[in-house]
Amino acid sequence: MDDVLRILIHGASGRMGQALLRLAAENPALGVVAAVTHRRPVARVVQGVAHFAASELHGVPAFDVAIDFSLPAGFDPILALCLERKVALVSGTTGLSEAQRGALQAAADSIPVVWASNFSLGVAVLAELVERAAAALQGWDCDIVEAHHVHKQDAPSGTALTLGQGAQAAGAAPRYASLRAGDIVGEHLVQFTGPGERLELIHRASNRDIFARGALHAAQRLAGKSPGLYRVRDLLD
Amino acid sequence: MDDVLRILIHGASGRMGQALLRLAAENPALGVVAAVTHRRPVARVVQGVAHFAASELHGVPAFDVAIDFSLPAGFDPILALCLERKVALVSGTTGLSEAQRGALQAAADSIPVVWASNFSLGVAVLAELVERAAAALQGWDCDIVEAHHVHKQDAPSGTALTLGQGAQAAGAAPRYASLRAGDIVGEHLVQFTGPGERLELIHRASNRDIFARGALHAAQRLAGKSPGLYRVRDLLD
Amino acid sequence: MDDVLRILIHGASGRMGQALLRLAAENPALGVVAAVTHRRPVARVVQGVAHFAASELHGVPAFDVAIDFSLPAGFDPILALCLERKVALVSGTTGLSEAQRGALQAAADSIPVVWASNFSLGVAVLAELVERAAAALQGWDCDIVEAHHVHKQDAPSGTALTLGQGAQAAGAAPRYASLRAGDIVGEHLVQFTGPGERLELIHRASNRDIFARGALHAAQRLAGKSPGLYRVRDLLD
Amino acid sequence: MDDVLRILIHGASGRMGQALLRLAAENPALGVVAAVTHRRPVARVVQGVAHFAASELHGVPAFDVAIDFSLPAGFDPILALCLERKVALVSGTTGLSEAQRGALQAAADSIPVVWASNFSLGVAVLAELVERAAAALQGWDCDIVEAHHVHKQDAPSGTALTLGQGAQAAGAAPRYASLRAGDIVGEHLVQFTGPGERLELIHRASNRDIFARGALHAAQRLAGKSPGLYRVRDLLD
Repeated sequence: MDDVLRILIHGASGRMGQALLRLAAENPALGVVAAVTHRRPVARVVQGVAHFAASELHGVPAFDVAIDFSLPAGFDPILALCLERKVALVSGTTGLSEAQRGALQAAADSIPVVWASNFSLGVAVLAELVERAAAALQGWDCDIVEAHHVHKQDAPSGTALTLGQGAQAAGAAPRYASLRAGDIVGEHLVQFTGPGERLELIHRASNRDIFARGALHAAQRLAGKSPGLYRVRDLLD
Repeated sequence: MDDVLRILIHGASGRMGQALLRLAAENPALGVVAAVTHRRPVARVVQGVAHFAASELHGVPAFDVAIDFSLPAGFDPILALCLERKVALVSGTTGLSEAQRGALQAAADSIPVVWASNFSLGVAVLAELVERAAAALQGWDCDIVEAHHVHKQDAPSGTALTLGQGAQAAGAAPRYASLRAGDIVGEHLVQFTGPGERLELIHRASNRDIFARGALHAAQRLAGKSPGLYRVRDLLD
Repeated sequence: MDDVLRILIHGASGRMGQALLRLAAENPALGVVAAVTHRRPVARVVQGVAHFAASELHGVPAFDVAIDFSLPAGFDPILALCLERKVALVSGTTGLSEAQRGALQAAADSIPVVWASNFSLGVAVLAELVERAAAALQGWDCDIVEAHHVHKQDAPSGTALTLGQGAQAAGAAPRYASLRAGDIVGEHLVQFTGPGERLELIHRASNRDIFARGALHAAQRLAGKSPGLYRVRDLLD
Repeated sequence: MDDVLRILIHGASGRMGQALLRLAAENPALGVVAAVTHRRPVARVVQGVAHFAASELHGVPAFDVAIDFSLPAGFDPILALCLERKVALVSGTTGLSEAQRGALQAAADSIPVVWASNFSLGVAVLAELVERAAAALQGWDCDIVEAHHVHKQDAPSGTALTLGQGAQAAGAAPRYASLRAGDIVGEHLVQFTGPGERLELIHRASNRDIFARGALHAAQRLAGKSPGLYRVRDLLD
């Protein structure tokens, strides 16, 4: 069908890649035309999806958008391919170098790109609401409390820091607290306290699929956009 | 001083009027030049503030903005005075007739006016965030839960309905639940639930002063604006 | 090994039965000696567990406790078997008749039994805390708010009603509110509001496995007890 | 009347003392027979209550219970007076020395006494619930989050530490987080997180009067008890 979005998934064997494949298969508006894995795939076609090794990247069929959740070493080739094919790139690969971030920025002159550490729709909306609230509630105290499972190493979470940076840019001075408990998928509270009143903005994730679902959503919105470096929130509606 | 905002308080003997007088006295940027009461005031000057009866309204000194928390019968004279003096009007008087609402709208061609049932800054910000979230989170469930003291008669609260109307205009289908318990000043939760994630936006009022403080804040922002009918949120920064 | 608890799972093909089999396999202190299904099992041994049809119930090997999540029609045979073998019974089968409840009560003279609609440890603890709080906070308002996924038909939830009955028995007059939104697994808030202060007791379930895990926990505690009708909370430590 | 409880308020000019006088006057079951202030009182009788200087302590009329919110230097005389008169003592005086705590313990052989840093009924109930939950939920993570106004110096709050000590004695390993924001009167969350579920126990104070009201409540329950050192929770019903 003409209106099925043709997707390439880069980093298809990782946890996010697997979730992307599974969720894309459930959505008739999406068609995965290539799943690219670091190592040689075990079969050419798995559950109806053509698989390719990273070394075969230039032989993949035509696609509308690439979704990349790979490793820093894999980022340059997929960015180069998207530039060559003039197609959109959604990337959630973490640990990029300064040079790679610069390359991404430069690519935005030619193709639409989005990079984020968290593709959840709810967090993207929260980030926008936090900035708006911080701008409107000058002088109120701003506290950010995040809770995650005990296996999470970093604290505060990257998402908490992103939320805090947005609040700070709008004039707030956020303070952070982190809880590590049980198997909590992820919760973020941004609280603004003024004299006699308080605003609490909370996001609760109960299922990791929201991150893959958000990346697919971003891919659908990004394909066909003008070149540029987009944020998840720019792609919400 | 040139930069002190000259305020007229209309409805000065009511609970809101008293709170306005008390809080204005604490703010050096504000000067109450006239407190107007329904009945003849007990003294010409009370705690340094000149008092006038409603029947003496046309004799009040020059002012920059009127703040009106009176009764429907008092609304027409203060609106007329503001039009005559070409000054701004902040009104929280409830129970206005259709004709009075029409007159307010018409007055907005000549002077800046704002009317609201809730002048809390936090609720004004919440209202804006709710509309933005509802627009961005199409298809998510929207629930509004409000809690107030046991003496509150109406349910859902007017503020909950206002929040819900905003969400509905943005595409959501809000459902309401109301709790009446103890001496809760007022709490509003607007919750958006999608697959695997949830956004909770909560306002908690702990002190009734926030309503008077918000009206004073609105007065400061409104004075000097172009004519028009403003919402509290238009006056936030 | 002497100290492995020998379990019979009755209703092994249902959603709870499957979860019980999966979780029991992960716990070296538990050994499933028989999985009984309504229909003839597809194989005699599935993943190392001996399977039996309901019609073969009397041929099962020796066990220490039966866990029953079947249908009302299956309840009488498993109760009879436990009485005959003088072993404990954990049942979460819903829709029992008055006669069946009476039979359960009578059986408690001979064997230890526990029946509950919710075997989550957290809810069992919450139920106890609610009763204690209600007894201590006489005259405070009591509100129960529960939230579940949109597919849940009944409202308030059975668990909310159980919590409310406990509060009522302790002197409170609970009121209920129910939210049905997204895919929420299950949340229960019991709130006590007094003058100037409030106590909120909240349980949040994020994973359905907690119900099976709780039933296994109850089985471990129940085996070896004196005859009697126990509640989940009686088996907590 | 025979059934009016005769109260002595020690430390009557402090913030708690003033609140105790105000709230006691509203309760017909209570009669303040003496208000004792550190300095010489401005009048012998204020709003119908007989006032005494600390130096006149031995001349006060007969009373049933003393409520002491004074300073460490004032503690010894009031304890001695209660022992001499064989009446109950409620004390919330902070900063007692080890010797004073020992004297309080010794006095409990002769008279009923209660000492606490927080007399809120809700916090007393919470403390009991936390101990019960911690005992029942072995192995779950325990986190305590408290929020207070920005003027509060110590962190975690004394109440948070008391709650945590109770949890720890029951087998938990609590971790603490503290927020200092706006004019929050005081909030305490004790959260237990297990696999797939979570229990949140929250106390919210919205009015400082609850501390005085709780002390009066404790006084009513304490008078007439056998000698002993009681906790607030022992006096709940």
